[in-house]
Amino acid sequence: MADRNSLIEARLPRGFEDRAPTDIAAVDRMIATIKTVYERYGFDPVETPLLEYTETLGKFLPDTDRPNAGVFSLQDDDEQWMSLRYDLTAPLARYFAQNYDRLPKPFRSYRAGYVFRNEKPGPGRFRQFMQFDADTVGAAGPEADAEMCMMMADTMDALGLGGKYVVKANNRKVLDGVLSAAGASDEGQKLAVLRAIDKLDKFGTDGVELLLGEGRKDESGDFTKGAGLNANQRDVVLDYIAGNPPDDNPGVQELGAMRGMFDAAGYGPDRIRIEPSVVRGLEYYTGPVFEIELTFQVPNEKGQPVVFGSVGGGGRYDGLVSRFRSEPVPATGFSIGVSRLANALKMTGLLSAEAPTGPVVILVLDRDADAVADYQRMTSELRQAGIRAEMYLGSSGMNAQMKYADRRNAAAAVIVGSNERAEGKVTIKDLAAGAEAAKAIKDNAEYKAAKVGQSVVARADLVAELSKIPSIARMRSGA
Amino acid sequence: MADRNSLIEARLPRGFEDRAPTDIAAVDRMIATIKTVYERYGFDPVETPLLEYTETLGKFLPDTDRPNAGVFSLQDDDEQWMSLRYDLTAPLARYFAQNYDRLPKPFRSYRAGYVFRNEKPGPGRFRQFMQFDADTVGAAGPEADAEMCMMMADTMDALGLGGKYVVKANNRKVLDGVLSAAGASDEGQKLAVLRAIDKLDKFGTDGVELLLGEGRKDESGDFTKGAGLNANQRDVVLDYIAGNPPDDNPGVQELGAMRGMFDAAGYGPDRIRIEPSVVRGLEYYTGPVFEIELTFQVPNEKGQPVVFGSVGGGGRYDGLVSRFRSEPVPATGFSIGVSRLANALKMTGLLSAEAPTGPVVILVLDRDADAVADYQRMTSELRQAGIRAEMYLGSSGMNAQMKYADRRNAAAAVIVGSNERAEGKVTIKDLAAGAEAAKAIKDNAEYKAAKVGQSVVARADLVAELSKIPSIARMRSGA
Repeated sequence: MADRNSLIEARLPRGFEDRAPTDIAAVDRMIATIKTVYERYGFDPVETPLLEYTETLGKFLPDTDRPNAGVFSLQDDDEQWMSLRYDLTAPLARYFAQNYDRLPKPFRSYRAGYVFRNEKPGPGRFRQFMQFDADTVGAAGPEADAEMCMMMADTMDALGLGGKYVVKANNRKVLDGVLSAAGASDEGQKLAVLRAIDKLDKFGTDGVELLLGEGRKDESGDFTKGAGLNANQRDVVLDYIAGNPPDDNPGVQELGAMRGMFDAAGYGPDRIRIEPSVVRGLEYYTGPVFEIELTFQVPNEKGQPVVFGSVGGGGRYDGLVSRFRSEPVPATGFSIGVSRLANALKMTGLLSAEAPTGPVVILVLDRDADAVADYQRMTSELRQAGIRAEMYLGSSGMNAQMKYADRRNAAAAVIVGSNERAEGKVTIKDLAAGAEAAKAIKDNAEYKAAKVGQSVVARADLVAELSKIPSIARMRSGA
Repeated sequence: MADRNSLIEARLPRGFEDRAPTDIAAVDRMIATIKTVYERYGFDPVETPLLEYTETLGKFLPDTDRPNAGVFSLQDDDEQWMSLRYDLTAPLARYFAQNYDRLPKPFRSYRAGYVFRNEKPGPGRFRQFMQFDADTVGAAGPEADAEMCMMMADTMDALGLGGKYVVKANNRKVLDGVLSAAGASDEGQKLAVLRAIDKLDKFGTDGVELLLGEGRKDESGDFTKGAGLNANQRDVVLDYIAGNPPDDNPGVQELGAMRGMFDAAGYGPDRIRIEPSVVRGLEYYTGPVFEIELTFQVPNEKGQPVVFGSVGGGGRYDGLVSRFRSEPVPATGFSIGVSRLANALKMTGLLSAEAPTGPVVILVLDRDADAVADYQRMTSELRQAGIRAEMYLGSSGMNAQMKYADRRNAAAAVIVGSNERAEGKVTIKDLAAGAEAAKAIKDNAEYKAAKVGQSVVARADLVAELSKIPSIARMRSGA
């Protein structure tokens, strides 16, 4: 035991979180459902390590001593910089390039894993979080992009979100055509125009027009500087978001081909929609881009109803593998934000947010070797019958042991004192039934006298009697 | 596409590995089995992040600029050092101490996760690897240690390793008693004695005696310096490993109590054995220590048969949580080396090392929009019937597409040209049956004429006909 003065403070690093059993079980179930869909589409799992050489991730900044802008980096003992991956796409590009000769092409793979962002943490903004990606590398045509959109729709349906989502698709080439037709000159102005388009859902056409021009003041008086387009330029963009894409644009043709495939396979605009306002932030997209929006409403921080919004997105990134290889390597993919999707499912009641049923707790009332051996035998017997069970291992008395069983969310407690052992009897306390009955009983003395949920049974009938409790019956049947 | 001169080399960082579908599927199945056993014992999952403050891990060396001895470390923007965890025990101790007030005590939890070692990589020695741990924190008695041993035995049985393993238990207090009785003076000599004891399995009693004395020369002539004990001192240790533990030692009593519990619960010495030569390396153990040894033989590098050996171990670590809290917090736990155990299971045929069945590949012979829409419809139809399926998305011709289907380990290929489409027919090629039949046929012309595994069926019967292929039938039934 350490001197009190030399104690270390037990604390999580800033922006990181621990995960509890309820969340782990819920997310595991969600991931299993997603995997089933991806595998049915012919995707196979591949996993890369959490560290990559920094140059692989493409974030190395030669003007800084330590490449820590946005990524967590460290120097190996041979002086090479390594970084924790900040997404699952860059490591996949490295994997594909490194194993080019032996991989089937197109190469279809999926992976769920943690990614890291060296950013200022905030409420709900973590520096380690899980993404679930699927990618097709080596397929140039819009069939591969269309398949991504259909797979995302099927995934949402498999999770029970049918009618509560829409997959929206657009194309960077179309956006580039609009920027060019509108005469947006430098990168800064182009970015400002894209950001304005991205705000259509939030601010409507009028808001977008302000952001395309001089700027927009929000209700709180904060001013966002606009893209600085003149009236004619603004009209080109507004015309586009009203549904008139530029003529003779290869992106428009790709979107048309994708729409044809969606219709042929029975994915109507209620599930997959071509949507001019979809922009997607990442600069490496080169063609179709898409995102999944959950359309049901949730209250925002001010209590106002807003749509839940995006839980994932992706697009075509034909340039990413080509950083490693001299031949062109087209690729398209999709990434789901695992925590955000899990939260959406919990909110809609589609993913249980309840703690799993705890083990049956065998109370330890006598501590001589024979009694403990007997408690141990009972515990083993229950486990062999497929019932989660444990013998209490602490040093506290009966009341604390009952409290422990409650905190474990135990289905039942088993109580055997020396008299009961001599008589071949055990007392079973059904904790859920007891808690339920206790609600109806006001008087504490009455409660104790009633011994709700408590029954004395023959030791030989322990498994059979416990199995009458519904949550234990479910546990035994593996449900 | 990048200029050839500016290409980045695609390479894994030194000592890290990518994981392929076959390995991922096999290890996932193994982990699911282990989880079932741990949950039946009343353990619940808990997960901590991959990074911790370096002081939490206890590896911070104040005399070095960067705490990189054995761990991967980096400095956060607020100057605090963080490290990638090197085991799952130190983060658990932090978690328990940080959440002390709200956690049930004893606290029983398990976790599988990656750990990192900043060490020189070698063949089969990786710098990122997976461990699977279970721990009981807040239980002081040998019941908790005995339970760990029984759970490890049950885990090995559940994995199919019955009769091929033994869980060995010993106690650090017994070893301390022996060191004291033998008069081992300083830490260096104590460590040398423990190392000598640890070699009993490998070198026998004679070898241990040499290592306790001046030292031992192996067959290649390499000399290992011994502990330097005199004859009387050596006898104390040799007497101990011959089965005579020190008198009046609290560790001997704990082992006796554990043996009693093993016998009461039906775990004979064939499954759990008290074994004086078990030492375990880690310095933080304070009482019982244990390890799982797989007892079947495998060839070593020289082709000689040796026992497979340890796949996990653990023990009581009463001091680890106390670094954070002033009250004593006893704890005991166990860690399995996931890759090593998976390798053992593959070697014994208990874990499939075969690639999972690939998807049915719909070949794309016509590329006009109507044909592609039709291929797409067929693909969707198969997926909806629970069959893994994909439309070929590359740009190559028929021969390359067939090769692609082979590399994907596809169960079947579906071939539809324009004539077949007009007639409402499809050709199914059963690739496994084809490969089997081809072995018997020497002549290539004969092979082509035979069209082995190939059948023309009505388009409407596609799902029914494909389901006659055994691997597809298994896929549909979820087996």
